Amino acid sequence: MAEIPKLRVGFLGLGIMGEAMARNLLKSGLFASVMVWNRTMAKCAPLVAEGAQCAETPAAVVDSCDVTFAMLADPSAALEAVFGDNGVLAAIAPGKGYVDMSTVDEATSTKIGEAIATKGGKFLEGPVSGSKKPAIDGQLIIMAAGDKELYDLVQSAFNVMGKKSFYLGTTGAAARMKLVVNMVMGSMMGAFCEGMALADKAGLEQSALLEILGLGAMANPMFALKGPAIMSRNYPPAFPLKHQQKDLRLALALGDALNQPLPVAAAANEAFKNAKAKGHADEDFAAVYEATQQK
Amino acid sequence: MAEIPKLRVGFLGLGIMGEAMARNLLKSGLFASVMVWNRTMAKCAPLVAEGAQCAETPAAVVDSCDVTFAMLADPSAALEAVFGDNGVLAAIAPGKGYVDMSTVDEATSTKIGEAIATKGGKFLEGPVSGSKKPAIDGQLIIMAAGDKELYDLVQSAFNVMGKKSFYLGTTGAAARMKLVVNMVMGSMMGAFCEGMALADKAGLEQSALLEILGLGAMANPMFALKGPAIMSRNYPPAFPLKHQQKDLRLALALGDALNQPLPVAAAANEAFKNAKAKGHADEDFAAVYEATQQK
Amino acid sequence: MAEIPKLRVGFLGLGIMGEAMARNLLKSGLFASVMVWNRTMAKCAPLVAEGAQCAETPAAVVDSCDVTFAMLADPSAALEAVFGDNGVLAAIAPGKGYVDMSTVDEATSTKIGEAIATKGGKFLEGPVSGSKKPAIDGQLIIMAAGDKELYDLVQSAFNVMGKKSFYLGTTGAAARMKLVVNMVMGSMMGAFCEGMALADKAGLEQSALLEILGLGAMANPMFALKGPAIMSRNYPPAFPLKHQQKDLRLALALGDALNQPLPVAAAANEAFKNAKAKGHADEDFAAVYEATQQK
Amino acid sequence: MAEIPKLRVGFLGLGIMGEAMARNLLKSGLFASVMVWNRTMAKCAPLVAEGAQCAETPAAVVDSCDVTFAMLADPSAALEAVFGDNGVLAAIAPGKGYVDMSTVDEATSTKIGEAIATKGGKFLEGPVSGSKKPAIDGQLIIMAAGDKELYDLVQSAFNVMGKKSFYLGTTGAAARMKLVVNMVMGSMMGAFCEGMALADKAGLEQSALLEILGLGAMANPMFALKGPAIMSRNYPPAFPLKHQQKDLRLALALGDALNQPLPVAAAANEAFKNAKAKGHADEDFAAVYEATQQK
Repeated sequence: MAEIPKLRVGFLGLGIMGEAMARNLLKSGLFASVMVWNRTMAKCAPLVAEGAQCAETPAAVVDSCDVTFAMLADPSAALEAVFGDNGVLAAIAPGKGYVDMSTVDEATSTKIGEAIATKGGKFLEGPVSGSKKPAIDGQLIIMAAGDKELYDLVQSAFNVMGKKSFYLGTTGAAARMKLVVNMVMGSMMGAFCEGMALADKAGLEQSALLEILGLGAMANPMFALKGPAIMSRNYPPAFPLKHQQKDLRLALALGDALNQPLPVAAAANEAFKNAKAKGHADEDFAAVYEATQQK
Repeated sequence: MAEIPKLRVGFLGLGIMGEAMARNLLKSGLFASVMVWNRTMAKCAPLVAEGAQCAETPAAVVDSCDVTFAMLADPSAALEAVFGDNGVLAAIAPGKGYVDMSTVDEATSTKIGEAIATKGGKFLEGPVSGSKKPAIDGQLIIMAAGDKELYDLVQSAFNVMGKKSFYLGTTGAAARMKLVVNMVMGSMMGAFCEGMALADKAGLEQSALLEILGLGAMANPMFALKGPAIMSRNYPPAFPLKHQQKDLRLALALGDALNQPLPVAAAANEAFKNAKAKGHADEDFAAVYEATQQK
Repeated sequence: MAEIPKLRVGFLGLGIMGEAMARNLLKSGLFASVMVWNRTMAKCAPLVAEGAQCAETPAAVVDSCDVTFAMLADPSAALEAVFGDNGVLAAIAPGKGYVDMSTVDEATSTKIGEAIATKGGKFLEGPVSGSKKPAIDGQLIIMAAGDKELYDLVQSAFNVMGKKSFYLGTTGAAARMKLVVNMVMGSMMGAFCEGMALADKAGLEQSALLEILGLGAMANPMFALKGPAIMSRNYPPAFPLKHQQKDLRLALALGDALNQPLPVAAAANEAFKNAKAKGHADEDFAAVYEATQQK
Repeated sequence: MAEIPKLRVGFLGLGIMGEAMARNLLKSGLFASVMVWNRTMAKCAPLVAEGAQCAETPAAVVDSCDVTFAMLADPSAALEAVFGDNGVLAAIAPGKGYVDMSTVDEATSTKIGEAIATKGGKFLEGPVSGSKKPAIDGQLIIMAAGDKELYDLVQSAFNVMGKKSFYLGTTGAAARMKLVVNMVMGSMMGAFCEGMALADKAGLEQSALLEILGLGAMANPMFALKGPAIMSRNYPPAFPLKHQQKDLRLALALGDALNQPLPVAAAANEAFKNAKAKGHADEDFAAVYEATQQK
């Protein structure tokens, strides 16, 4: 039986996340070649040293690869990589796939998907849950939506970058899922900070509350990780508060469009806005505690 | 060296929780004797068959034991057992201890503690986190407050009934901690139900949301357990919704007394009130979903 | 036809409100006599100079009068005047009426009403809406509940103290109505302060917003009166913020007991709590603006 | 002294509001001519019978007039009248003014203003407060922003259409002011409905609550007008609920952009969303009561 030919894969965007993800593709040995691109080319050097190829433009990567993945900083970077000079759109063609794993809003994702489709390419949005460490460990959770054939084709790649991937439907579904997940996260953090603040006011040790929560049905890694940050009132940014607030805002807008009341999320959103107004926008989202406690 | 004499322990209240807890005391073999009492005496039979003694009144138990534990249905039952005819107060005396593990409000706990102290007895409040299964498995989380010497004395008993106990301070502290914990729980459930409802409105599979939440930093046993109940819209009561709403109300009152704003909990409380008004008071507290989703 | 004999009326409590109300009874010339009492007797002097009689105890007033009115500072003063030594209860008897116009909670009102009834007296609760100026001008709004015959009997007195009185039902109904009215007031003030704060942030003149609101369907005396206080960030207490917050709390508790969700009032209550926590408890309730605006 | 020449004025959009406003311009006799346009020309007939001129396109009106006013249904109609074929933009020129009194968002208003300015014309946004009756009576409240010279020039026209006009600053300020005003309105209506619902649950007559509110510091035309609608549970649309909810949403978005927490408005918005979800989108905004009361 003829062997299935290995895919040639590309990767655009070598930030903290992207570099780790591209390295996992490279190390897996599952692909015919791994070609990378970054806006500042110097970032390509380590991966080239490990066996990757490097290209000067997104179009050059797409031109040489069967499937190109991207992990870019924000919607404007994601749009630039596709629609800019020598962007993805200049090279995408029938038989080629593009998988954008950046966190972007549904409108951005849809715009990219439609442009790719117009050129005959296949498109998948694939935002992830998880940050630096899971990216390095290949333990991301991948929420994918768009072209189902492309989803099936890139299973091997998703398997080395993540511990689990989900196919959620047509383009936009993954962006919406990410909003729902982050809305629950924001409300949970708001609830947690109120508990921590009330414990303190009620003369209870916050460390005891953390231990008790950690032993019961609500036990979760987020409380365990963020509790000590709150106790020390020190919030080095893993997920900046302003991004959490933006996601709450977008989730509320989604609920608004769909006639879904979300009073708990709305109250949490006001707490995050309060924290932003107090100057904590760039700290970790656990800094919403600073808007919750009094003095 | 002389051996420490084994304690004679008593247990008042053999409901679902109490029977399991008393049985664990009995099975441990750590105590000189285990004497039980229940308002309807028939409930004592199984434990007597396993080696427990049985008494006709709370006073008779206290009279024969060094330390008496209680697990009663509600504040009025807790008060009746202490202040009623042939109640704990009739027999408590210097050298004897009383540990009330019922879930009661701070005022009830304080009233009992003061009465016990007037007679020279020692008092500890010890509400638990966890329901039937952890009670059977000896895996409860015990929040204790009151007499520290008594707390130290009953460590062996707490160890067979629970997986961990906390000494939180003077009487009332454990009641307050329980409120804080249950307030966080109510807000988290409110947040979770909003996520489930928004997912559904947004054309996303609720089962996919559950899986994704279960793989990330928010993963917790409560979402895993209650998610399927929500998906089936069927809520057999483990923790009745009206009790969750009552705890939110009391936690908000505590915040009010302490000048602690709690806007997320306040919004969640309104959702639970809404669910009560829609007829879900006696279902499981996950039924707050019925007030969140629209049709 | 025989003339209806004029009533002998008494008045307990000569604070800012009470003195003005008693003076209106006196000046009306409608009553056979007006006898007053105050905890510190010196306060009686001005009214005595104008023709009132003065007594040393509440019992002495009730003993000499057909109907005794009271306007006392708070529930504890209201209870003391009735149940204390030489209180109302010592002299109330069949054929005598007691009208408590103090602002008290339903439980206090009910307790007083039941005690009066036990002695054969008639009772009416009659809390008022309006403060110093309406009291002086005889323009209070009187919410009455309790004995309907007594209500009819004291119409002439209500007419000189107020511009309108309402009979609302059995004892307790007036206390509840007052809570509903003050809940709407607290939420409206919260809404108004958010508008003022948003106008300021949006580069709009707050004075223009005030004028515009004053010309449309929302125009009301409260916005007109409190707007300038908010603009000057200066809140001399007419209705102390802590009392407004207490009324919101009690209204929410009433809603809780009656399964009535009140999410807007709950959000407003949190804003008032926030203002209390920031040190504005004793300022006017318009100071909730200080919790709403950001710097 | 030479007389100031009378202005030739135009009017685009003859809906319920626009027809009444154009008629007031015509009846005033203050203008050299009044030329009207409507998308369906038949609507022009009554005004032509009263002395107005009629044109077939917005451009034709602008071409013949010194200042053209517009009162169009929504942002898309406002944009079409300006940017469409034979629109305002085709004829606007130095020396001519355009005053858009439609209720549109800030972005729409800004877009129109910039296009007018590019052609050398002057622009003013002038949304109004008040509906059919004030429009007929010339008693609208006009919130204007944009070109100050144009504002001064059209004072005579504003005086016949409204009882008061405000100049609020550069283009966009009036759109923002309208949002602030409508946000306060939505929160007030939410607060009012909670009071009405709680009164009912507490066994109090809603009519008594209305009377009491109508006599005190909160008395306002809106409560007086909408109270009976709520009591009859019948909501013929004066201001459709979906528009109130949209304005709350936009005001919250404005607060979000400006870091202004608005928890009361956020809670009210959720109530309006709830009412929309229950099918009351097209009824009057007082129908938010249907989301507030239970059963």
